[in-house]
Amino acid sequence: MEKENDAKPSLERWKFGHNKAMAMAGSRSLRGAINKVITCLEETGPRPVIPLANGDPSVFPSFRTTPIAEEAIVEAVRSAQYNNYAPTNGLLSARWVVAEYLSKDLPYKLCPDDIFLTAGCSQAIDIIVSALARPDANILLPRPGFPMFEARCMYNNVEMRHFDLIPEQGWKPDLDQVEKLADENTAAIVVCNPNNPCGSVFKYHHMEEIAKTARKLGVMVISDEVYDHLTFGSNPFIPMGVFGDIVPVLTLGAISKRWVVPGWRLGWIAATDPKGILRKTKIVDSIRSILDITTDPATFIQGALPQIIEKTKDDFFNNIINVLRDAAEICYNKIKDIKCLTCPHKPEGSMFVMVKLNLSYLADISDDIDFCSKLAKEESVIICPGSALSMKNWLRITFAAEQTSLIVGLERLKLFCERHEKN
Amino acid sequence: MEKENDAKPSLERWKFGHNKAMAMAGSRSLRGAINKVITCLEETGPRPVIPLANGDPSVFPSFRTTPIAEEAIVEAVRSAQYNNYAPTNGLLSARWVVAEYLSKDLPYKLCPDDIFLTAGCSQAIDIIVSALARPDANILLPRPGFPMFEARCMYNNVEMRHFDLIPEQGWKPDLDQVEKLADENTAAIVVCNPNNPCGSVFKYHHMEEIAKTARKLGVMVISDEVYDHLTFGSNPFIPMGVFGDIVPVLTLGAISKRWVVPGWRLGWIAATDPKGILRKTKIVDSIRSILDITTDPATFIQGALPQIIEKTKDDFFNNIINVLRDAAEICYNKIKDIKCLTCPHKPEGSMFVMVKLNLSYLADISDDIDFCSKLAKEESVIICPGSALSMKNWLRITFAAEQTSLIVGLERLKLFCERHEKN
Ligand SMILES: Cc1ncc(COP(=O)(O)O)c(C=O)c1O
Ligand SMILES: Cc1ncc(COP(=O)(O)O)c(C=O)c1O
Repeated sequence: MEKENDAKPSLERWKFGHNKAMAMAGSRSLRGAINKVITCLEETGPRPVIPLANGDPSVFPSFRTTPIAEEAIVEAVRSAQYNNYAPTNGLLSARWVVAEYLSKDLPYKLCPDDIFLTAGCSQAIDIIVSALARPDANILLPRPGFPMFEARCMYNNVEMRHFDLIPEQGWKPDLDQVEKLADENTAAIVVCNPNNPCGSVFKYHHMEEIAKTARKLGVMVISDEVYDHLTFGSNPFIPMGVFGDIVPVLTLGAISKRWVVPGWRLGWIAATDPKGILRKTKIVDSIRSILDITTDPATFIQGALPQIIEKTKDDFFNNIINVLRDAAEICYNKIKDIKCLTCPHKPEGSMFVMVKLNLSYLADISDDIDFCSKLAKEESVIICPGSALSMKNWLRITFAAEQTSLIVGLERLKLFCERHEKN
Repeated sequence: MEKENDAKPSLERWKFGHNKAMAMAGSRSLRGAINKVITCLEETGPRPVIPLANGDPSVFPSFRTTPIAEEAIVEAVRSAQYNNYAPTNGLLSARWVVAEYLSKDLPYKLCPDDIFLTAGCSQAIDIIVSALARPDANILLPRPGFPMFEARCMYNNVEMRHFDLIPEQGWKPDLDQVEKLADENTAAIVVCNPNNPCGSVFKYHHMEEIAKTARKLGVMVISDEVYDHLTFGSNPFIPMGVFGDIVPVLTLGAISKRWVVPGWRLGWIAATDPKGILRKTKIVDSIRSILDITTDPATFIQGALPQIIEKTKDDFFNNIINVLRDAAEICYNKIKDIKCLTCPHKPEGSMFVMVKLNLSYLADISDDIDFCSKLAKEESVIICPGSALSMKNWLRITFAAEQTSLIVGLERLKLFCERHEKN
């Protein structure tokens, strides 16, 4: 019997194999798309690689996190009080401090029971999409948007329907389209503010319009605010939860961006919902059920959170904002100088700008992916192809980099474009 | 229009609601089951609560992790080299050290590409079950087992088929039953060694039998070895990967138990598969795709891993083993003394023992859940009802606790049983 089996072609005997659905979901990830661009780098390239694809400037000295945050971790780990499993929703002290932190910008007060700690904002997305994954449910997603939403919808078999952000109107969502897309199975509309990938920041009255539209449609708002407070234009950061009495809002956040510690994996879901609709409709119970069967943020990082949030000085935040403002300015001006690129809207928040590629100026570039691949190969500069965000022939560039690197990177980008220009 | 909507009963206007499937999956979690027992505690109870339900002794002084591990974290976080996002599979240095760590007990060498870092062994389970979740696929699970497998199968719509561990045979898996359960859609058989919840440790020849059965059936083995090396009886720890040339094995592990830091959330999936079948059948690609869209273990904890694994002294491990051996002995002897409880097999590994409840001796206890609820209420002792592990009228008790607490807890258990005995 053993013999017989051994004679079979070696792989046929095994009953497991490739999971195509998961491969599809994975292929929607930014990580996957950017990893592909990275493989185009010439290993022997003499020049340092300049990464302008990810929203992760933590490797640059100007973006080093505050020592207060580092020492809060040191203290927590040395205390040996946080080696244990955390409770399902997170440590009470950490949920308490997040509730206080978010309440500062709201017209009502959150309590710790409104907060669910997650392993970064990515896991917050993962959990929310699972919570909404009922048979036939659909979710409205912005285009362009953060592809983790698409990937998790595919993973959970949730139908996604895309509404456009309009570049000519400062990347405002097309709410007429939203109304047309929604039906009786639409559970939520997702917004991201400050916006990745557009670098835009919502105005108060636009947010109110979104809230009213969502209310009219009977859908909740999922507001991805992982770039909270990272604004440097004329629009201040306003949390969507401000409109929580119009429509229930689930707010997603993290310390990843504002504290520049994306590797620490600490985020949250907040039920910014003063009328308690998310509780009454049991969405909150669904979130809790999923948290019961998912991994948590490290307990000692939760334990350090009160110190991190309460002790960080405004100086630290202001400095990051100033660095980002200067970088956004440099980026915008340099891109204006490049013939084949147009930037419809000057970035005023987050770490990104969306740039349109005018292929007609270029001789031998077939699309955005070709552009990014050749740029990586020839200039060792990594930027994110718009296709990864369902925006073919656009590019997403991050300006969150050390100024010297950013300038060199954008100069190489310019040289690259000139070299590939049509005569 | 707004008015009209406002007139509707407040919840009807909203199109989202409770996700019953997720609630079902969540209800399979140990966390959920144990949380329910905890709610039975009397808040005004004068005596300290004694937790004998979870495999988390990290709060007890005898189980404090080694300072080497703590200082490795301190160094990593202060270096500011690990604030960034980690690569999809984990930091190379960390994967390298896990490969070396596991290779010590294998007849072949793993390389970093065989290792995928996860946020604890829980996330390893989550990812593996997702990777196997093809339409119609089924997985063979041990009963009793670790309910996270059941919960994630329910979450991912993977059919589960249970085979029994036989208490009278030292909790050996019933391989005849395994053969009957498997069909052409069976992708994997799950084993757990050292075993939670039974406290048993596989012998070499039993493991070989399992490997041969799996090979005959064409299914891979998923070996949950989160309790690796935690053995204190006559059977030494042998990793299932030793049989990797008979059958491809995915080994799941973590630093959670051996280093007593479950809150640090660092684990792994290892392809212990010298013939490369998991790679050729693209299971490894599926794992990678899922890792592209899931959260990671904190980067600085990954960065600390080489120090943690390479520098921890044998003294630390030996001490933990000695504490566990003594605790298991105490637990086994105390339970022997209680009329309504029988322990079919003396624990020789992990942190748990399964105990059978003989209700016929008890006057007013209806089942295991009733037993645990009343025990919590009356004696402030928390143990895990067997029902949570599909073993109605059994109990799972952990002996991984400070000796004084363990003794007091078991004495209260005895008093409780005597008080509820039939005359
Ligand atoms: C819009 C948006 N949401 C969520 C995330 C994920 O955040 P985290 O790194 O905290 O998981 C990112 C990360 O770049 C993001 O840009
Ligand atoms: C058998 C088994 N597998 C996996 C896990 C999860 O391990 P971790 O805490 O590393 O997520 C546990 C935790 O108790 C367990 O007992």
